Amino acid sequence: MTTSLFGRDVIRIQDLSLNEVNHVMQTALKYSSALEAGDLLDVMKGKILATLFYEPSTRTRLSFETAMLRLGGLVVSVAEAKSSSSAAKGETLFDTGKMIEGYSDVAVIRHPVVGSAKELADGSGAPVINGGDGAGQHPTQALLDLYTILKEKGKVDGLTVTLAGDLKNGRTVHSLSNLLSNYKVKLNFASPKELAMPAEITEPLKAKGAHISEIESLAEALNDSDVVYMTRIQKERFADPEEYERLKGSYILDRAMVDAAKIGLTIMHPLPRVNEISTDVDDYAGAAYFRQAANGVPVRMALLALVTGMA
Amino acid sequence: MTTSLFGRDVIRIQDLSLNEVNHVMQTALKYSSALEAGDLLDVMKGKILATLFYEPSTRTRLSFETAMLRLGGLVVSVAEAKSSSSAAKGETLFDTGKMIEGYSDVAVIRHPVVGSAKELADGSGAPVINGGDGAGQHPTQALLDLYTILKEKGKVDGLTVTLAGDLKNGRTVHSLSNLLSNYKVKLNFASPKELAMPAEITEPLKAKGAHISEIESLAEALNDSDVVYMTRIQKERFADPEEYERLKGSYILDRAMVDAAKIGLTIMHPLPRVNEISTDVDDYAGAAYFRQAANGVPVRMALLALVTGMA
Amino acid sequence: MTTSLFGRDVIRIQDLSLNEVNHVMQTALKYSSALEAGDLLDVMKGKILATLFYEPSTRTRLSFETAMLRLGGLVVSVAEAKSSSSAAKGETLFDTGKMIEGYSDVAVIRHPVVGSAKELADGSGAPVINGGDGAGQHPTQALLDLYTILKEKGKVDGLTVTLAGDLKNGRTVHSLSNLLSNYKVKLNFASPKELAMPAEITEPLKAKGAHISEIESLAEALNDSDVVYMTRIQKERFADPEEYERLKGSYILDRAMVDAAKIGLTIMHPLPRVNEISTDVDDYAGAAYFRQAANGVPVRMALLALVTGMA
Repeated sequence: MTTSLFGRDVIRIQDLSLNEVNHVMQTALKYSSALEAGDLLDVMKGKILATLFYEPSTRTRLSFETAMLRLGGLVVSVAEAKSSSSAAKGETLFDTGKMIEGYSDVAVIRHPVVGSAKELADGSGAPVINGGDGAGQHPTQALLDLYTILKEKGKVDGLTVTLAGDLKNGRTVHSLSNLLSNYKVKLNFASPKELAMPAEITEPLKAKGAHISEIESLAEALNDSDVVYMTRIQKERFADPEEYERLKGSYILDRAMVDAAKIGLTIMHPLPRVNEISTDVDDYAGAAYFRQAANGVPVRMALLALVTGMA
Repeated sequence: MTTSLFGRDVIRIQDLSLNEVNHVMQTALKYSSALEAGDLLDVMKGKILATLFYEPSTRTRLSFETAMLRLGGLVVSVAEAKSSSSAAKGETLFDTGKMIEGYSDVAVIRHPVVGSAKELADGSGAPVINGGDGAGQHPTQALLDLYTILKEKGKVDGLTVTLAGDLKNGRTVHSLSNLLSNYKVKLNFASPKELAMPAEITEPLKAKGAHISEIESLAEALNDSDVVYMTRIQKERFADPEEYERLKGSYILDRAMVDAAKIGLTIMHPLPRVNEISTDVDDYAGAAYFRQAANGVPVRMALLALVTGMA
Repeated sequence: MTTSLFGRDVIRIQDLSLNEVNHVMQTALKYSSALEAGDLLDVMKGKILATLFYEPSTRTRLSFETAMLRLGGLVVSVAEAKSSSSAAKGETLFDTGKMIEGYSDVAVIRHPVVGSAKELADGSGAPVINGGDGAGQHPTQALLDLYTILKEKGKVDGLTVTLAGDLKNGRTVHSLSNLLSNYKVKLNFASPKELAMPAEITEPLKAKGAHISEIESLAEALNDSDVVYMTRIQKERFADPEEYERLKGSYILDRAMVDAAKIGLTIMHPLPRVNEISTDVDDYAGAAYFRQAANGVPVRMALLALVTGMA
């Protein structure tokens, strides 16, 4: 069956309708069941995925490549694309897109510059998926985050979700809050004032009627949260180092905070974590961050199969 | 069917007889038709290609790897071979060839130093294909260039082909003029005097009776050209920077020049291009350079299958 | 058939019992025969190996990847893991292990720091094989060394094996002497006094009743050797450069030394070699070092299949 996603590029999360997002979720659930049953799929037999990484991201690259292989497809990979001769000689990403279309059936690009995925897609006749372009978008991360909530909670509507930490600079939390605002969800934005969710994210959400609370205390936000999505606070983001020292501890989630939170709290993190979730949380049943990383595989399987019309 | 290419290394374009070149062309056309028909080939089932790249060349590496996968084969890849521990510790390429024979059925090497491909091949019992060795040879590029002329024009004999730009330093145009001189082709060499085709290339061609014109004006050369093969002129190649400034514009192909040229002109370029072909040429029907890049796949499929005896 | 190795990590050679080592040898011999017969195996169909290399080692990485492909399995590869964003951001190897478990069925790690393989294995629910961790262990090298002796000599018991060169710093000779001490083997340790086998290796061997001779002259050691295992002596290992100059020649194996040695001498080397074995030895029938490198494939096939329960 082909769908409305057949032949489509996936550049920004907003480019997908709610129906399309739900179709991705259903397809991912189907593949997840197949993987758990040990089925060998040949959905993408003979198809080639090209992964073009202009900055390293082992997690994103491997999960796309594993997804393609689990579908029975094949992979060609450029893990260090920025040092490739073409890029060094000044080839445009549009021309690279023309090239990659000759070598593969679908491509994933990761690039430090906003808009890069779009430029590659403009050149390529084969579908292009954005694997993260700088401060821009990382739509497949948002989809796997949504999928994780769905898997862990069995639903999305009716939940209270807290996004915590550095909400100013995190493209992950921007895309996810955008995506979640399509559902009946209460969003808590828990961050130091200096690192609050920017107005260009919150204003459109409020205009859509999203239910949003901004709050400085993570501990307080956890009192009514079903899900908390942690991100890292980096010292270099603060103008005043003393402010960083004063605040950092309150955005580190440890077992005591989890035990004081609402029963059944699900804990998420895009990974890699450094110290923003203590390792004593790892064996808590609701610690979902490693499962979340693994969820990248079925979600990316779904996208790869849908945009190539093979799902 | 095995052929005279079975078990052979492909190091220099001159090592292939005209019959062998034509056999590669016929095999490439066969695989191209199969790809267009969507056939899944298993010609190389269970065979392994090793790609050893001591300098980056995304285009060459990916097109070889895609070629192997499209044949149903498998790939192991060293994209950054120069930083490998063996090379850093001073292992000879002969010893590396001995090693690679244990790990693969055929190998491709790219290396900045002339003669490297030969040295690897001397060590390896498995066939080795030269993917470019410095100022030396790049035989598979010449073969895909010939193949592109054949696909675009339906023939090679009787054509006038202009090679333009930096003819002094371009190994691509050296190999291609060598290869084309085996056919009934008129060759125009269009370049600044400082970057003219070297005598060690032109003399043997003339001795063979090749029909050659040397000309400074690209526009003039295009008056009777069926095909133009553009290459880039780099400022650092000129002793006198003012000479570069005076000349550079006349070797940039734009739409106006194309419209003034002989009707039906086919435009080729080994890519990546920087600015030597204006983007306003891209939607001209005879702009063949992106198709040329894609032609690397069937041509390399043909070579891989022929040298391993699987074609 | 599943074995006692099913689900196991392979971190140190001592972790394998003599029975398990022999099982690996038998399984490797079986796969070697299948490869020689040209059989296409599908033992690992649909399974994924992840190779994580935090320092380059082309030989080790390619032989693992080739092994997986020859078993009909699939590979995802991180050839430059240390520059990956996760490692750069400070993710622990334990967390990386949690990640890799979501993306693959078995993993191989190479890392410059002792203990790294263990840390990854502690995180990963999928089996982890140590591909070398700094001055620590390189168990698959020791296994392929043992396998080479078995293939070349038809047996291990009753042989005299000389380990030569830098015995102080070579983890290869440490692991191999450990492994060989389980058999009825006489071991000669031939090295300059400054680079002698450390007491922490020799003492436990002697306590086990191993038959060991320490000797400074390689030529003398070769008088009764069935096998010699050469390693490189590096100038920078000597406190006194004059001592290096005095000694270096006597640990370079050339054809004259081979011709003067016991008839039938088998010559091994972990490769890459620089000049410690002269190239005039290469065509001597007992020069086994290139076959030894190729033996990495069936031995690693055996390990991959055994730890995943697919052998």
